[in-house]
Amino acid sequence: MKRIHSKDDIIQTGLDIILSKGFSATGIEAILKQANVPKGSFYNFFSSKEEFGLAIIDRYVAEVGEHFHTIFTDESLPPLERVKKSFESRIWTFEGYDCTKGCLIGNLGQEMSDQYERVRERLEQALQGWAKALTTLLLQAQQENAIPKDLDPEMLAENLIASFQGALLRSKVKKSSEPLKNFIYLYFDRFLTQKVE
Amino acid sequence: MKRIHSKDDIIQTGLDIILSKGFSATGIEAILKQANVPKGSFYNFFSSKEEFGLAIIDRYVAEVGEHFHTIFTDESLPPLERVKKSFESRIWTFEGYDCTKGCLIGNLGQEMSDQYERVRERLEQALQGWAKALTTLLLQAQQENAIPKDLDPEMLAENLIASFQGALLRSKVKKSSEPLKNFIYLYFDRFLTQKVE
Repeated sequence: MKRIHSKDDIIQTGLDIILSKGFSATGIEAILKQANVPKGSFYNFFSSKEEFGLAIIDRYVAEVGEHFHTIFTDESLPPLERVKKSFESRIWTFEGYDCTKGCLIGNLGQEMSDQYERVRERLEQALQGWAKALTTLLLQAQQENAIPKDLDPEMLAENLIASFQGALLRSKVKKSSEPLKNFIYLYFDRFLTQKVE
Repeated sequence: MKRIHSKDDIIQTGLDIILSKGFSATGIEAILKQANVPKGSFYNFFSSKEEFGLAIIDRYVAEVGEHFHTIFTDESLPPLERVKKSFESRIWTFEGYDCTKGCLIGNLGQEMSDQYERVRERLEQALQGWAKALTTLLLQAQQENAIPKDLDPEMLAENLIASFQGALLRSKVKKSSEPLKNFIYLYFDRFLTQKVE
């Protein structure tokens, strides 16, 4: 039997399960069983299931943040292409899981925002950080005339993330990445570039 | 003590609670207690909690569908304005609940699509019905030159719904309808009308 005992491993196991099943539907017992950890150790590491949820969000944000950072700082691509590529890379991940799971931030945002104020705050923070990184790139894209100058880059960054989350949700229900691909096409080939017939 | 015993009342009570708390976090007991129904009657009406979930979706789709139908057929407004108004009306509802609850279709789509295949199919059906109604209006809007002729109305309808769901999710985390209002502005004053500087 595999022996996993560290706090880190419980977080990783929890992240995998909660990404699939959601927070409420996931029992602590199931996580501990899969991670081969006695129940006592769990409460050594986390004072509550909510605390555990926060740790999982932090892990997810760190992982995805690192992944995004590599794309956002890739100077071989123009700023708008980096924004596009960052979303496309998440679509490939989603397709790799047969159009399941989606984004932890979106999933927990939907499930927990009305019930767990500290979780909501942590998710809000994560979404704001994401928007901030995109805003910087969109501002550069504006300076290069890749997107219209009179669009507010901050509003646009927030809206891109929101619409991406919506397309991800739609794709999860459809079990097809088509809505995500349409998001990429419409935003990056039409809406942002404002091509007229 | 209030006496509520009909199947209809259990569905309405369940809809209210599940819209707030989600499906997994809502126990049948809590619904029956609030509806003042003995546990036995529940299983006279529904063979399982999943079956109950499907009945709740059907009720929600019927209610919102009726509401949308009134807007979609309001010939005092141009087709694109009807589309806009239908989304705005949902924003007012969301604001009326202090930026909580959101849309049952989005909530359950996020929570249940990977776990309950029959629920996923029912939600997919609802989303396709919604997109079909919008497609008809967008086609009319195209004929009136209100939106570009080379945008696929079906793709656009799907994308509008997805982006609205994303903006709703973002607003739920932010506890502010600002992302929803930005969705309205960006789509209806910029993206769809393709105004260039």
